[in-house]
This record gives sequence, structure tokens and C-alpha cells, in this order.
Amino acid sequence: MSNLRAPFSFFHRLRVRWAEVDLQRVVFNGNYLLYFDVAFTEYWRATGLPDPIAQQKVGRELFVRKAEIEYLGSATFDDELDIGVRCEKIGRSSLTMNLAIFRDDSCLIAGSLVYVYADAHAKQSVEIPAAWRDRISELA
Amino acid sequence: MSNLRAPFSFFHRLRVRWAEVDLQRVVFNGNYLLYFDVAFTEYWRATGLPDPIAQQKVGRELFVRKAEIEYLGSATFDDELDIGVRCEKIGRSSLTMNLAIFRDDSCLIAGSLVYVYADAHAKQSVEIPAAWRDRISELA
Amino acid sequence: MSNLRAPFSFFHRLRVRWAEVDLQRVVFNGNYLLYFDVAFTEYWRATGLPDPIAQQKVGRELFVRKAEIEYLGSATFDDELDIGVRCEKIGRSSLTMNLAIFRDDSCLIAGSLVYVYADAHAKQSVEIPAAWRDRISELA
Amino acid sequence: MSNLRAPFSFFHRLRVRWAEVDLQRVVFNGNYLLYFDVAFTEYWRATGLPDPIAQQKVGRELFVRKAEIEYLGSATFDDELDIGVRCEKIGRSSLTMNLAIFRDDSCLIAGSLVYVYADAHAKQSVEIPAAWRDRISELA
Repeated sequence: MSNLRAPFSFFHRLRVRWAEVDLQRVVFNGNYLLYFDVAFTEYWRATGLPDPIAQQKVGRELFVRKAEIEYLGSATFDDELDIGVRCEKIGRSSLTMNLAIFRDDSCLIAGSLVYVYADAHAKQSVEIPAAWRDRISELA
Repeated sequence: MSNLRAPFSFFHRLRVRWAEVDLQRVVFNGNYLLYFDVAFTEYWRATGLPDPIAQQKVGRELFVRKAEIEYLGSATFDDELDIGVRCEKIGRSSLTMNLAIFRDDSCLIAGSLVYVYADAHAKQSVEIPAAWRDRISELA
Repeated sequence: MSNLRAPFSFFHRLRVRWAEVDLQRVVFNGNYLLYFDVAFTEYWRATGLPDPIAQQKVGRELFVRKAEIEYLGSATFDDELDIGVRCEKIGRSSLTMNLAIFRDDSCLIAGSLVYVYADAHAKQSVEIPAAWRDRISELA
Repeated sequence: MSNLRAPFSFFHRLRVRWAEVDLQRVVFNGNYLLYFDVAFTEYWRATGLPDPIAQQKVGRELFVRKAEIEYLGSATFDDELDIGVRCEKIGRSSLTMNLAIFRDDSCLIAGSLVYVYADAHAKQSVEIPAAWRDRISELA
């Protein structure tokens, strides 16, 4: 286990699909955001907090406000990837998540996503509930 | 204009995107259904009939019940494709559409989609309105 | 285990991703071909026969010649799906595969894919090796 | 024409596809990188410089090293979007591109992509040819 993996305690594993790879024989650059989304969904499941569908029912949503991705290496067809997810910072209504994609001990992709918790209709940010804050801090 | 194009009077043109091409340097087989969908959307716009969003507002939807695709050739990155769309048959609550994808005069893909017009909540088929029937017959 | 699952001995499980679901709150119709492809990749891994990359290295490929899909039900976000894969028929140079997608005991999607084994450069069909034939018959 | 559009002289227009929209009724966050890629392809075509396929033939490629995206608004099904593309900076072997996605005069997405020009086999950066530098500066 390399130092690069050390900051993460939550990982989600997935395998690169044929259709996700492009003419350069590597995963298309936009598909890593798809992987981030899949991994964040599993991270969120691990928190046990209300999932996106449950949030929709009460008129709330987490939407992505900002994404940053550094492409340090490239994954290819059939690679098994481990996606580390951790919460770097919890603001009043935002979550800053760090994500990194590993193939074995090599870090291929590093990135961050800023999510805002909002009223789905008014499109206005809403304070993150204290219970969520506690649970996310626990999981880190 | 080849004989193969002859049955079609409606065409939609699109260009193959980088991310749609796979390791075999050709469009991933599933993406032709994406192209069919895009072309059907444009065909439907040409009919002037209520679009999917307008249909949703009154609790109706057209959903795909069956798809068939024959892969006769393959498209690659940056190809400009013409997608022919025509209605082969209008049933009580279904539309059988023929679609074909051409690069110049060569037919790469031939297929059909059967759509069912339905109540979006009850998930039950609903009779296609007479006015739709007339308009689609006109356009063929 | 329902009768519908009975013909299949090989299954691959996957979970529906957020980005795969459309405005009708169901998996976009074209994405089931993506699922078929993922499941066929795993079926092929189970055969132990040369994978697509190994085939490319010797100038061979399996390409899809025909696809048929019946949409009997619809999957939605976060559903866990079991995709059954079996070989219905082995021709001189073609494989006819049956695939079906289950959520628990309900069959949502039934389909078939015809693959042709070919010389990747000459784009001509090539006889399926006897050893492949035996192995696939074994696995059914 | 708003001030936000002012920095851009090159725009590519596209229409949001059904399959690109998610359960929140907006374009899935990762798909904007797909739009950036499509728009960059058209920008590059406008330069008249060797395209990705021509670059591959001589063992060169432009790969994405870094991406940043700010989500200021959201696009939905059938929206017509204008994607502005401009080169902010040309380094020895890198191009920093600014991109922004507009629906009419409202800027929905702002982002940047850093591309590195490289030897496709050695995976090492290569100096951007002077002729490219001149042409890109011309187009801005």
C-alpha cells in the first residue's frame, strides 16, 4: 500500500469497460468523472445518509459545483481500478471531496469535486444537516 | 443518391465523436442506438407533434419496446453520417420505425425500433391520436 | 430462481449508474447494449479463450453483426441487475448469443447478439477454432 | 452578445441529446467534458493543423493533462448550446485552452483544459512546432 493511497480509507473498485476506451487505447478523459460519480455514490451509501432519490422526494439535491482532474497516467480496457474517496472539507452548504484513481499502487488520476446541497426547486443552497456533518466527519 | 437511400425522405446528419469510437477504431456497437435516438428526436421535431417533454406533462410517453440492428459496415471517428428515418407501420398504440445509417452512399447500419405510446404512470398502452396518425403518414 | 433464468448458467451482476438513466427515470434504451457487452466480456473471460486484446495482436476480432433487444421492463438508478449469457448456436464463423437482464426474478430485457469471428484487416470471416467450439459448448 | 462571450471568437454549436441528461433532468456533470472534446475537435479543424489521426500516424498525440470545470448553470434536453474555445497560453509542449458553454447569453459552464503534445510511444512531451504556435496564436 503506497503513501498515495494513505489519505483514503474508502475505496470503490471497478473495471474499465470496452466502450469507455477511445482511439488512443485509453479511457476517454471525460469518463473519469463518470467513475468519480460511481465512487461517490458508493461512498454515500457507506455513510448511510439519505440517497439521491430520497433527497429528491423532499426537494433536496447535491449538485456538482466544481470539478478538477489531473491526469497523471491512463487506464485502459479491463484494468481494475480502485477509486479512493474522502471528504476534505465540509462548509455550510458544500462538501469538498478528494478522489483518486489507482491501478495497484500507481495513482492515475487525482481530482476534487465540490458538491452543494440545495433546494432542488429554488436552486438555492441549504445548510448541511448537523447529523450529516457528524457522519461524514466520522467516515472522513 | 443510391437505391438504399430511396425509401427515406427524412435524414439527420451527425458527426462521429471521439468518445464514441472504441479500441477496434470503430463506433461502439451500442452507440448506434444513441444515433437512432437522436435521429428519431429530429424526425419527431419535423412532425410538429408534441415532444417528449410535452408528452410527460400530460402523463404520456413513447417508449422503445423492441430494437433490431444489423451491422453492415462500421463508422469511425469524424465520419459524417446520414441517418434515414421512416415510419413503416402505425398500429393501434405502436409505431414501427425503420432507420438506416449512411456514409455517402454506403449503408453501414440498418435497423428498426418499435415504439409504444403509453400512459406513463399506468404503464399501459394508449391509442395513438388520429391527428398523429395523419401527420406521420404524411411524412412517411 | 424463476423459469426465465433457467436457460442460463452464466450471470454477471452490475449496478445501474446515475449517468445511465434518462429523463424517463429509466436506463436509456441504448445502454442495455453496453450491459450486454460488459456481460459478454465476463462470459468470455470465463471461457479462458484469448481475450479481445490477445485477438487483436494476431489480427483477429469478434465483431457484432446483428443485435436484437426486447424491452419487457425497465431498470432504474441503483438497481442490481443480473445479466445471463449463453451461446445458442455456433456456426462456421459466427456465434449467436442469448442474453437476458434480470432484476431479482423479473426479466427486464431479452436479446441476442450475433458475433462474427474475422480477420481484422481483410474484414473477412474466419473459421472458429475447434478448441473454442469445444470450450464454448462446455460452458453453454 | 454578452460580455461573457466576448473573449471567444470560435464557437461550436450542439444540441443536448436525450441520453446525456440524468435523473435531475440536467446534463450529467461528466458529459460537459464530452462537449469540450467535441468543441476542441472543431476548433482544431478550424486551425487546419494535423488532426488526431494524422498525428497518430507520426507517433504524436495531444493528451489532456488537466481539466477544470465550474458548473454555473445547467443545460437540459434539447437545449442548443454554444461552446466557446480559445487558447489562453502556449507553453513549450502544452496548450492551455479556455472553454465556456452558453445557452443564449447565459454562461452555464466555464472550464479549462491543459493539453500536452507528446510522443505517443515514449509518453514524453515534445515541443510544439513553430508553425502550430503561429497558427493557434492567429486564431486565438
